[in-house]
Amino acid sequence: MFFASDNGSGAAPEIIAALTRANDGYARSYGADPIMARVKTLVRDLFDAPEAEVHLVATGTAANSLSIALLTPPWAAVFAHADAHVAVDECGAPEFFSGGAKMIGVGGAHGKMTPQSLSDALSRVGEGGVHGVQRGMLTLTNVTEAGTVYTPAEIAALTELAKAKGLPCHLDGARFANALVATGATPAQMTWQAGIDVLSLGGTKNGCLGVEAVVLFDPAKAWELELRRKRAGHLFSKHRYLSAQMEAYLTDGLWLRLATHANAMGARLVQGLAQIPGTSLLHPAPANMLFPIWPLGTNDRAAARGAVYYPMPAPAGHEAGRLVASWSTTDAEVDAVLTALAP
Amino acid sequence: MFFASDNGSGAAPEIIAALTRANDGYARSYGADPIMARVKTLVRDLFDAPEAEVHLVATGTAANSLSIALLTPPWAAVFAHADAHVAVDECGAPEFFSGGAKMIGVGGAHGKMTPQSLSDALSRVGEGGVHGVQRGMLTLTNVTEAGTVYTPAEIAALTELAKAKGLPCHLDGARFANALVATGATPAQMTWQAGIDVLSLGGTKNGCLGVEAVVLFDPAKAWELELRRKRAGHLFSKHRYLSAQMEAYLTDGLWLRLATHANAMGARLVQGLAQIPGTSLLHPAPANMLFPIWPLGTNDRAAARGAVYYPMPAPAGHEAGRLVASWSTTDAEVDAVLTALAP
Amino acid sequence: MFFASDNGSGAAPEIIAALTRANDGYARSYGADPIMARVKTLVRDLFDAPEAEVHLVATGTAANSLSIALLTPPWAAVFAHADAHVAVDECGAPEFFSGGAKMIGVGGAHGKMTPQSLSDALSRVGEGGVHGVQRGMLTLTNVTEAGTVYTPAEIAALTELAKAKGLPCHLDGARFANALVATGATPAQMTWQAGIDVLSLGGTKNGCLGVEAVVLFDPAKAWELELRRKRAGHLFSKHRYLSAQMEAYLTDGLWLRLATHANAMGARLVQGLAQIPGTSLLHPAPANMLFPIWPLGTNDRAAARGAVYYPMPAPAGHEAGRLVASWSTTDAEVDAVLTALAP
Amino acid sequence: MFFASDNGSGAAPEIIAALTRANDGYARSYGADPIMARVKTLVRDLFDAPEAEVHLVATGTAANSLSIALLTPPWAAVFAHADAHVAVDECGAPEFFSGGAKMIGVGGAHGKMTPQSLSDALSRVGEGGVHGVQRGMLTLTNVTEAGTVYTPAEIAALTELAKAKGLPCHLDGARFANALVATGATPAQMTWQAGIDVLSLGGTKNGCLGVEAVVLFDPAKAWELELRRKRAGHLFSKHRYLSAQMEAYLTDGLWLRLATHANAMGARLVQGLAQIPGTSLLHPAPANMLFPIWPLGTNDRAAARGAVYYPMPAPAGHEAGRLVASWSTTDAEVDAVLTALAP
Repeated sequence: MFFASDNGSGAAPEIIAALTRANDGYARSYGADPIMARVKTLVRDLFDAPEAEVHLVATGTAANSLSIALLTPPWAAVFAHADAHVAVDECGAPEFFSGGAKMIGVGGAHGKMTPQSLSDALSRVGEGGVHGVQRGMLTLTNVTEAGTVYTPAEIAALTELAKAKGLPCHLDGARFANALVATGATPAQMTWQAGIDVLSLGGTKNGCLGVEAVVLFDPAKAWELELRRKRAGHLFSKHRYLSAQMEAYLTDGLWLRLATHANAMGARLVQGLAQIPGTSLLHPAPANMLFPIWPLGTNDRAAARGAVYYPMPAPAGHEAGRLVASWSTTDAEVDAVLTALAP
Repeated sequence: MFFASDNGSGAAPEIIAALTRANDGYARSYGADPIMARVKTLVRDLFDAPEAEVHLVATGTAANSLSIALLTPPWAAVFAHADAHVAVDECGAPEFFSGGAKMIGVGGAHGKMTPQSLSDALSRVGEGGVHGVQRGMLTLTNVTEAGTVYTPAEIAALTELAKAKGLPCHLDGARFANALVATGATPAQMTWQAGIDVLSLGGTKNGCLGVEAVVLFDPAKAWELELRRKRAGHLFSKHRYLSAQMEAYLTDGLWLRLATHANAMGARLVQGLAQIPGTSLLHPAPANMLFPIWPLGTNDRAAARGAVYYPMPAPAGHEAGRLVASWSTTDAEVDAVLTALAP
Repeated sequence: MFFASDNGSGAAPEIIAALTRANDGYARSYGADPIMARVKTLVRDLFDAPEAEVHLVATGTAANSLSIALLTPPWAAVFAHADAHVAVDECGAPEFFSGGAKMIGVGGAHGKMTPQSLSDALSRVGEGGVHGVQRGMLTLTNVTEAGTVYTPAEIAALTELAKAKGLPCHLDGARFANALVATGATPAQMTWQAGIDVLSLGGTKNGCLGVEAVVLFDPAKAWELELRRKRAGHLFSKHRYLSAQMEAYLTDGLWLRLATHANAMGARLVQGLAQIPGTSLLHPAPANMLFPIWPLGTNDRAAARGAVYYPMPAPAGHEAGRLVASWSTTDAEVDAVLTALAP
Repeated sequence: MFFASDNGSGAAPEIIAALTRANDGYARSYGADPIMARVKTLVRDLFDAPEAEVHLVATGTAANSLSIALLTPPWAAVFAHADAHVAVDECGAPEFFSGGAKMIGVGGAHGKMTPQSLSDALSRVGEGGVHGVQRGMLTLTNVTEAGTVYTPAEIAALTELAKAKGLPCHLDGARFANALVATGATPAQMTWQAGIDVLSLGGTKNGCLGVEAVVLFDPAKAWELELRRKRAGHLFSKHRYLSAQMEAYLTDGLWLRLATHANAMGARLVQGLAQIPGTSLLHPAPANMLFPIWPLGTNDRAAARGAVYYPMPAPAGHEAGRLVASWSTTDAEVDAVLTALAP
C-alpha cells in the first residue's frame, strides 16, 4: 500500500533488462556510447523534431536546473507557478545553477497558471528598468504539482504570452508520459508545437532507476548545455547506463504503457474514493496523483492499517492527503488502500 | 583491447546482482532506504570511524566538488596538484560549487606534491591580507593522475603542513581501492589517521555503474552537505540504486578484490612493456594506470591493430600513451595490447 | 520642485567641507586612514556598542547585499517585506552576493510586516527538510519603502519571532536617521536593543555624496565582511573620502539635524496636501516620504507646472505619486509643489 | 616621502573643484545626470570611438571584474599575466563576478606576456573538450604590475593571438594615462586599434577620488553591463559625483598632465637611484612605478629616515622595494626619498 510517491516504486523489468544488456563489454564514456546515439534518434522521431538535441542526467532537479540556467540570465525572473517543484521543492537548485535568478510565483487554482495570472505577473515584474530583475523565462509543469494537467492548447496560450515578451519556455515533464496519456496529446503537440523550447523529460518516476532527458528543440545551445552538465557534475562517465534506461523507456511505447497503467490506477483510486462518504478531491485528478480531503481521523486510521502516503494541509475540520499511483501499482494495492481509508 | 580508462568497463556481476535485488518492491526515497543505513555502517566499520557520515552521489566530479565546496569559502585557495582532476578535468566544477574558490596548482614530479612544493605554495598564497585570496584547503588525489600513489606517511606529511595553517584536507579517492591495494594501507591509515577530513570514495571506476561516497570523518557539516547535495541536483529520488551499488561494493571485500585484479593487470602491463625495446614508463606504475613512452609510430601501429588507449604528449622524438587496466581486464587483453604495441 | 527622491539632492556643505579637508596630503589606503579609526569610535559611541565593527561602502545596495550575504547561506530564505528595496529594487543583488538565497516576500499594510504576517511566512517556509530552502534571516527596512516607520518595539516584536527560529536580523537603514527622528528612538534602541544584528546605516540620501556603513553589532564576522567587501569591488583604495563623509555626517548631530529638516519638510507637505480637495495619503507619512492619491489629471498638471516626482499606480479613478523631501528641501519648494498640485 | 602607492595621494584640485561645482542643486540619479552625457561624449571623442559606451564605477576592482564577467562565461579561462592585479590582488573578485571563471597565469618577464608565453597558454588550456574549461578571454594590464608598459604594437600582437581563437580582449588601465604618456600612443592606438574590446579606464590613482570608466568599444553588451553594475551594487544613486570627477579628469588634458608629472617624478627617481651604489632596477621603469633592488639594510634605514614604500621580495643577499610616484609627488619628495635610500 505504498502511495507516497511514484519514486518509491522500483524500475520496470524492461529497464533492468536493458541495464543488464548494456553492461556487456567496454563502451566509450561520457556520452559517446552507441546507445546514446540511438536515444537521440528515438527522441527526435517521437517528437517529430529532427533537430532536437538530447542530454541525459540522473535527476529531475538536475534536468530542471540545467534547463533554467540555460534559458535565463542571472539577473532575470523565472515565472513559475507558486507551487512549482522548481520553486519550492529543489532547495534553491535553480538559483544555484542560474547564479541567482529570481523565482516569481504565479498563481492559479489547481496548480495551473492561467493566462490572466501569468499576464499579471508578466506586467508586475521586469518593468523597473535597471533597478528590478528583468523578465527571463517561463517554466510550466505537466503533470502539475496538484496532479492536474495542461492541454497543449492551454500550454500554447501561456507560452504565447511569454513569447510576446521575448521569453523562452521550459516544461518540467517529470511526469510527462502521464500528461500525454491523460490528454491524448502527442509529444510534439505538448511541446514545441505548443511553444516549449526545452523539455525535462522524466523517466525516473515512471519506471526507470534514475534518468531524465533535457530535450532542446532548438539545438543552438547544445554545447553550452554540455558544458553546464559537466561543470555541475552531471555528466556520467559510464554514461551507457543512463542511455540504456532511456532507450528501453522510449522503445516500443514502454513509457506510454507504464504511464497508462499508472493513470488507470489513479482513476481506480478516484472511483474508489468517490464511494467513501465525506471524501472528495481538492483538485481534478486526470493522471496518477490525487489530493483527497476527508474527515478528521482518516490519516491516523489509514496509517494504522498500513497505508503509506503523505498527509497534506487541509481546511479546518478536515484532513487531506496526497496519493500517487505508479507503473507498479496493482489493483489489489488500490483496493487495499481504499479499504484502509474507508471508515 | 580497451585500455582508454577504467570507466570504459562495465559493472561487476555482484553489483548488477545487487541492483536487481534492490529493485524489489517499494522503498522510501531520497536516502531513507534501508540499504543506505547499512552502507553507513559498512563505511564506519571499514574505516574504523564510528562517527563518520556518508553521502552517496553518482559521479566523481560531484563528490569532489561537493567536498571542496564544503571545506572552503569562496574567497579562498584550494591547494591541488597542478595536474589534479579537480584542477584540469572537471570544467571548473569546483569553482562552480564553491562559488569561485581559486585552484592553486602545486607542483611535484609524477603527479605528487612534495612537502617542499606544498610548503612553497602555502607560503606564496594567502599572505596578501584582504587583497589576495585566503588559504582554504588541501586536496590530494590517490591514486594520482600520474598513476602513482601516496603512502599514508606521505599524505600525513602533506596534511600536517596544511593543518599547521588551519586548513582542512580532502582526498580524491576515485581510485581509492587501487591505492589501498598498491600500498597495503588500511582505509583508516590512508584517511583520517593521515589527516584527511573528507574522502571522495570512488566506486564507479572499480566495478560499479555510477556511485561515489563522500565520507565526512567529522560529521559536523553533514547537514550542510545534505543541503548542498540536494541543491546541486545530486540527491537521488530512487536512492536505493546508489545504496545497493555501494553496499555490494564494500561487502565481503569486493572492492579490494576488484582493485587487486586491476592492479595485477597493471603489473602485467608493466612487465610486458619492459620487454618491448625502446619503451619505458614516464612514472612509476604501482596501481592500474601506466604512462609509457615509446618510439615514434607506435601509437598509429597499435591503433591499427585494435589497441584503444589515449595518446599522450611526449618529448620530441617519442610518443607516449596512457593505459588503464580495470577490474574486468583479462590476461588475454593485456597480452593482446602488448602484442599490438610491440614493433 | 524636485521631489523625485532624496538622492536627487546634493551633499550638505559640511560633507563637502570634510571631503576637501580630507584631501590634504597622503593617507594610507584601503581603510587604514586615520579618519576611519575615528568613524569607528563615533559609531560605537553613538550606538552605545563598544564592540561594534564598522565597514564603509558607497551604495546602499552594496551595504544591504553584503549584510545579507554575511548572514544567510545560499540555500536559505531571506524574509523581507514583499515591497522591500532588497526584494524588488536591487536587480537581484542580494541573490548575487549571497550565491542564490531566496527572497520570501512577507506581507503587511503600509510597507510593514506584522508579527502575524512574519509568523505565517516563517511557518510556511523552511519546513520541507532538505527539499526546500532553509530559513536564513530577517531583513527589515526603516523608514520603510512606504514611508512609514517601525518603532523599536515593533522591530523587537519581529526580531523576536525570527530569533525564536535562530535567525539573524538585518535592518536596511537607508533612511535610518529619518526613522530615528520620526520615532524619537536612540540608535541603540532602534538596533541591537531591538534585536538587530547588522545595520545598513545610510548616509547618501541624507546629505552625503555616497557612503553607507555596515555596522556589525557582533564583531565575529568582521573579517569575513572585509573579504566579501574586497571581493565585491567595494573596498575603496582612497578610502579616506568615504571616512570623511561619514565622520562629518555623524559629528555634532549633523545626521539628525539633516533628517529633522527633511522630516519637517515632509510634515509641511502632509499639512499642505490635506488642504487640497480630493487628496489623501495612501500611507501614514511620519518621515520624509509621502504617497498621496489625488484626482485624475493631477500628475500631468503638476508636471506641466514643473513639479518633479514619481507617479505611482493608483486605484481606478485616481492617480497617485511619491514625493520625497530631503535635507535640502526648502519651505519655498514645498509651497511651490503644493501649488503645482492644487487644482 | 610617501611612495607606497599612487592611491595614497589625494585628489587634484581640479577634481575637487568639479565635485564642488557638481554639488549645486538637484540632479537625476543613477547615471541620468547631465554631466554623464558629457562624459560619454568626451570619451568617444578622445578615443575616436563614436559608438563606445561608457559606465562609471568607483573602484578598479569593480571595473575589471565587471569587464571580465561581461566577456567570459563561467566555464572558461581568463588568460592574464601570472602577476596581474586581477589574478592576485582582488581577492578573487573576477571569480565572484563571473561565476567562477578560471584565471590562467601567463608568464613573461617584467610583468609582460610575450606572444610565445600567451601562445603556449592558449595551446595548453581549452583543448580538453567538455572536461576542461574553455578558452574565455584575454586581459592585459598597462602600465603592468611590474611598472613596465606595452606598446600598441605589443598589445596588438597579443590580441591577435587571442582573436585567432575567437577571444575578446580587455585592458586593465588602472594607470592608463601613465601608459599613454610613457609610450606616446593615442587612446585609440592603445585600445581598439590594438584589438582591445573593453577598457578599464582608471581615474582614481591619477588624481581622482574614486572613479573608473568601463569603456565598451562594441556597445552590444551595454545593457548587460548596466544590469551587472546595478546587481553588483556599483550603480551610484548620486551618480553626478562620479561623472564630475571623470569629466574634469578628461577635460583639457588634465589626465595626461597629471600622468606626465607622475612619470616625470618616476624618471627623477630612476635617475637618482642610478647614483646610489649597489642599487639597480628589477624591471625597466618607463612610467611612475619602480622596483629597485639594493643592499641589505636599505629598507630599515630608509624607513627610519621616514621613507614610506613597500619592501618587496628580493634575491638572497639583497633587499628590494616598490616605489610609486603620483600626480602630487614633488621634486623635493623625490630628493628626500633618494637621500633616505642612500647609504
